[in-house]
Amino acid sequence: MKKITVLGGGTGTFVVLSGLKKYPIDLAVIVSMMDSGGSTGRLQDQLGVLPPGDLRQSLVALSEAARLWRKLFLYRFESGDLEGHNFGNIFLSALEKVTPNYDKVIETASYVLKVKGQVIPVTFKKSQICVRYQNGKIIKGEGNIDENYEEKTRVIEAFLEPQVEVNKKAINRLLQSDYIVVGPGDLYASIVPILLVDGVKKAIDKSNAKIIYNMNLMTKSGQTTNYKASDHVSDIKKYMGGNLEVVVVNNGKIPKRMLKWYQEEGEHEVKNNLDKADFKSGVVTADIVDRRKFEKPKQDKFVTARVRSVLRHNPDRLAKVLMEIIQ
Amino acid sequence: MKKITVLGGGTGTFVVLSGLKKYPIDLAVIVSMMDSGGSTGRLQDQLGVLPPGDLRQSLVALSEAARLWRKLFLYRFESGDLEGHNFGNIFLSALEKVTPNYDKVIETASYVLKVKGQVIPVTFKKSQICVRYQNGKIIKGEGNIDENYEEKTRVIEAFLEPQVEVNKKAINRLLQSDYIVVGPGDLYASIVPILLVDGVKKAIDKSNAKIIYNMNLMTKSGQTTNYKASDHVSDIKKYMGGNLEVVVVNNGKIPKRMLKWYQEEGEHEVKNNLDKADFKSGVVTADIVDRRKFEKPKQDKFVTARVRSVLRHNPDRLAKVLMEIIQ
Repeated sequence: MKKITVLGGGTGTFVVLSGLKKYPIDLAVIVSMMDSGGSTGRLQDQLGVLPPGDLRQSLVALSEAARLWRKLFLYRFESGDLEGHNFGNIFLSALEKVTPNYDKVIETASYVLKVKGQVIPVTFKKSQICVRYQNGKIIKGEGNIDENYEEKTRVIEAFLEPQVEVNKKAINRLLQSDYIVVGPGDLYASIVPILLVDGVKKAIDKSNAKIIYNMNLMTKSGQTTNYKASDHVSDIKKYMGGNLEVVVVNNGKIPKRMLKWYQEEGEHEVKNNLDKADFKSGVVTADIVDRRKFEKPKQDKFVTARVRSVLRHNPDRLAKVLMEIIQ
Repeated sequence: MKKITVLGGGTGTFVVLSGLKKYPIDLAVIVSMMDSGGSTGRLQDQLGVLPPGDLRQSLVALSEAARLWRKLFLYRFESGDLEGHNFGNIFLSALEKVTPNYDKVIETASYVLKVKGQVIPVTFKKSQICVRYQNGKIIKGEGNIDENYEEKTRVIEAFLEPQVEVNKKAINRLLQSDYIVVGPGDLYASIVPILLVDGVKKAIDKSNAKIIYNMNLMTKSGQTTNYKASDHVSDIKKYMGGNLEVVVVNNGKIPKRMLKWYQEEGEHEVKNNLDKADFKSGVVTADIVDRRKFEKPKQDKFVTARVRSVLRHNPDRLAKVLMEIIQ
């Protein structure tokens, strides 16, 4: 079985994993442990736990448990002391408090969610992602970067504070992988944090794995403002090293109403200006937009960044494209 | 296999179930759904869920899952938004939010905790236990009764507000039981609430089950202030009907240091003044004190009632005595 390893953490990773888990492959995800917004950030600050948010999403994405369990893990309390907290986040936090090590946390959560494949935190140490913009401004912490959406200048440097030790399992997995799948996902919130952990870049360099990059559908204010596809690629390459085998870019039509919501936030469709010749296996284009999700999400006081991303890749279509590349 | 049904909810029920589950019997517990103090009360008020506290204790008591799961369910958050909440309470509350009915909540929790036997909520409707004292004072809600420890006069009436429909499973179980085990437990906080639910008294009357009453070790201020064993029996009989087959009373020595803690709260050892002739199979006395638990529990701002009960029956010794009666 081909060993496929996804790098990421947020909703983009959720989509990729949800699609890929239906295929007979050896699937793993290396999860960024630097999300710090909302429920995750509060649990981290108040309880001193590792951020559970990205981990929760990956565990649920790979879950083959009954729908109830997945619904439970994603359930978000709407009032009282627990308002804004996801049950899954609380579960992981409590587990961390009663288990001797984080491997046991993953193992227990994987058991109850009947997780297919492996969920591998990139590190077990606490750290935060920091970015420096062209205008000299430095923003520290994933949640703060997410909120810095009014920033117009480009991120020119990203670093971790503190620099942290990698989870050896992540390194081993990278070295054994046949394919490494990067994105979609917030570039500086979900993907670069993984690449910055000690040893990850080196392992990717050393690995024979082919790298597939799933281009984001939309730009993200404060992270990839006005980015074209080539800007994403050059930023990724800066932190990842290795060689991109292929880039997957959407060519399907995005519903106008959605584009309008994004435009209100200064976000636009990522323009495909890539040259096929720059990648070993070129650029694959396909209609991979998920048009099922049309509803604008409710705002609430715990979502400090504006509208959560509403436009997604379609898990099944994206997975189909990926599997054609892989087989 | 003999069908044994325990009535209760709090720590006393936890002890009985922990002991009995080791025997080859058909075990069930009918749980009071009227606890309203601490974490349970807040979740109930803030989320509109049924009170999870007593249920959690019974589920964990009957759990045959790895120790980690039991530890997780009893874990209490110590800081931040979740301070004072038990993980188990949060789990049951979230489950209630994502499941269509409460049977599914019990089923799911029983599955993950590998519960031996059946946990049967006495009702799925919201209600509270109310008591009227000899001096005319009325206190409503289990949590408030628990806090009314300065009350010196006797409870002369207990009622539910509102009166609620019984869970049919509880009735069926009572009718099929060979033995019904009552107590130990707070008389008006854990036991009488069950007996007051519509149809319970009638089912006990109708059932051929023999009733075993485990006498509390200590009096409880505000509920059984200055009660002797005969006072407990007469109160129980008032709400339960049926015939007590046998009463189990401790005759072991209670450590002096413990007695002193209780005395500071106006609580004393329950004096055995029972006449064997009053019960079909008499009064069984044995040393059933648990002397392993000597540590005075920490006070914290969420435990409004003073010291939580620290003196317990020993689960194994109590179960042994019960099994001698049953076989």
